[in-house]
Amino acid sequence: MLSEFSLIDRFFARRASAPSLRHPDEAARPLGIGDDCALIAPPVGHQLAISTDMLVEGRHFFADVDPYALGHKALAVNLSDLAAMGAAPHAFTLALALPRADEAWLDAFSNGLLDLARRFDCALVGGDTTSGPLNICITVFGDVPGGAALRRDGAQAGDDLYVSGTLGDARAELGAIRGEWSAPDGACWRRALEYPEPRVELGQALRGIAHAALDISDGLAGDLMHIFKRSNMRALVDADAVPVSDALRTLPDAARRQCALAGGDDYELCFTAPVSARAALADIARRVDVPLTRIGTIEPIVSTDTPGAPGITWRDANGAPLSLTLQGFDHFHAD
Amino acid sequence: MLSEFSLIDRFFARRASAPSLRHPDEAARPLGIGDDCALIAPPVGHQLAISTDMLVEGRHFFADVDPYALGHKALAVNLSDLAAMGAAPHAFTLALALPRADEAWLDAFSNGLLDLARRFDCALVGGDTTSGPLNICITVFGDVPGGAALRRDGAQAGDDLYVSGTLGDARAELGAIRGEWSAPDGACWRRALEYPEPRVELGQALRGIAHAALDISDGLAGDLMHIFKRSNMRALVDADAVPVSDALRTLPDAARRQCALAGGDDYELCFTAPVSARAALADIARRVDVPLTRIGTIEPIVSTDTPGAPGITWRDANGAPLSLTLQGFDHFHAD
Repeated sequence: MLSEFSLIDRFFARRASAPSLRHPDEAARPLGIGDDCALIAPPVGHQLAISTDMLVEGRHFFADVDPYALGHKALAVNLSDLAAMGAAPHAFTLALALPRADEAWLDAFSNGLLDLARRFDCALVGGDTTSGPLNICITVFGDVPGGAALRRDGAQAGDDLYVSGTLGDARAELGAIRGEWSAPDGACWRRALEYPEPRVELGQALRGIAHAALDISDGLAGDLMHIFKRSNMRALVDADAVPVSDALRTLPDAARRQCALAGGDDYELCFTAPVSARAALADIARRVDVPLTRIGTIEPIVSTDTPGAPGITWRDANGAPLSLTLQGFDHFHAD
Repeated sequence: MLSEFSLIDRFFARRASAPSLRHPDEAARPLGIGDDCALIAPPVGHQLAISTDMLVEGRHFFADVDPYALGHKALAVNLSDLAAMGAAPHAFTLALALPRADEAWLDAFSNGLLDLARRFDCALVGGDTTSGPLNICITVFGDVPGGAALRRDGAQAGDDLYVSGTLGDARAELGAIRGEWSAPDGACWRRALEYPEPRVELGQALRGIAHAALDISDGLAGDLMHIFKRSNMRALVDADAVPVSDALRTLPDAARRQCALAGGDDYELCFTAPVSARAALADIARRVDVPLTRIGTIEPIVSTDTPGAPGITWRDANGAPLSLTLQGFDHFHAD
């Protein structure tokens, strides 16, 4: 049986790339796995963007998930947080609780994790391994020039509201697994659930253009509220403009809207930008090869007709008001 | 029942102190809880020391542990890693899987955690909360001047080998709980197990003096091997010089040595320093009020009489060779 140290060495440490040398002072070289701490430094004038996510079996993934896909997703959801800040991936730590040291599982999991890490030049610099119910906790570090991060509190009245890619496919796959509906031929739902693509290049391209941004992990409706509360704004959103895949269009209206507007696990970016940025955003969409769709407008909170303070007014494609009952994702309530 | 967001807000976000302003550029101010990422930057010329530790119920603590003590210990073990690098605590993230949102438990846990964080001016800057088997994953960030970190690979032949405080009390308490032996009156064992004191001030004082350092979390014998392997050295260690509490002295020799030399959960610092530093170290011990004890000498690996490469030669108080069978802590084998 593998010991804790040989497990770390074999599947992670020996295969991890070292953090790149960014510091002008040679004495202050970065340090990866193998000491009490890793040592890194952002370039002078930059900040380190930090995010942490914990994935639990039965809650964020099924026990029989492909471990390669799980390795990919565990890092992807963290890279998505960096993307939402406009930060460039730099390094990450991995803490792992495993019920047993299963070599085939670890081989596939570490491949999925490290393949994605290599794509984004994100070095594994440290971690912890223990026995226990399966739990994956990744903390990721990115670089962003000082003051250039895309925050949630910068939305301004009159801004356009955008989302990248399409929403709802991951939730649709979950519904298919649960028997709520069937996936049509050729549906991309499973790939959306298992292999979310963090919008890393897009996030960095939005620096200096977007006023506020976040990634959609708990469903558009709920996540938008984070922007509105932090920015003290509200929005008029065209529910039918929210971009969905052809496969999602096969679902009845109510199911489609539940998936697209409150589905969770999408990892697309949602952001606000001034009307003057429309041409620049069209260029960015082409350059990074990610569709960007305008879905609404940011409005100031006017006390007379918006008694509910920060919030969303939904409209359909014809501009008619929609009354939607959507349930966002909350880890302490049933989905 | 508390939702995920009100739980974070009530017990953690609202009570967390903001990260301090360290960056000269006002635009690049630090950002704490509430966005996709936290933003921090070490002072120019400094590095960020990063460590992550995962604590699992039934493995690192008992299900009925006092939640205040658990909050303390979860952060203390991470601060101990910073201390071992000579880094000053700056910030941390907390990822928490909870079987249920138990308000009394969360109140006590967050108090234990945040009381220790305040003592060391270490700001909670982000995290994640989910339902699942109880799991606490903390990632901690410290500042260290570029090139000044205490690493494991710097031990030199002729160095003295030191440990701080006393070793073995946490393991002795575990033995008492398991019925292996009884705690004598007034034993400090329980406090050692539940409230380890990270040697933060000592670690920073050792910068520029110690050649190599680490913290003792898995037992002296096993942890020392990390220094020897990374430094390509070995050591002659006086097993009876290893400092122990009066309460530990009441145990029979074999039990006492097992606790002190391979016990785990000690969180004292172990370091090497040149003979010329003895007076400076005596001054430091007085200043930070932590006993420092010389327990051995670092030796080069000489192929003729040290066939085992990096390793430890144990002696007793009379200089006679000791043959010890010690079991270090490995999370994938029984303790």
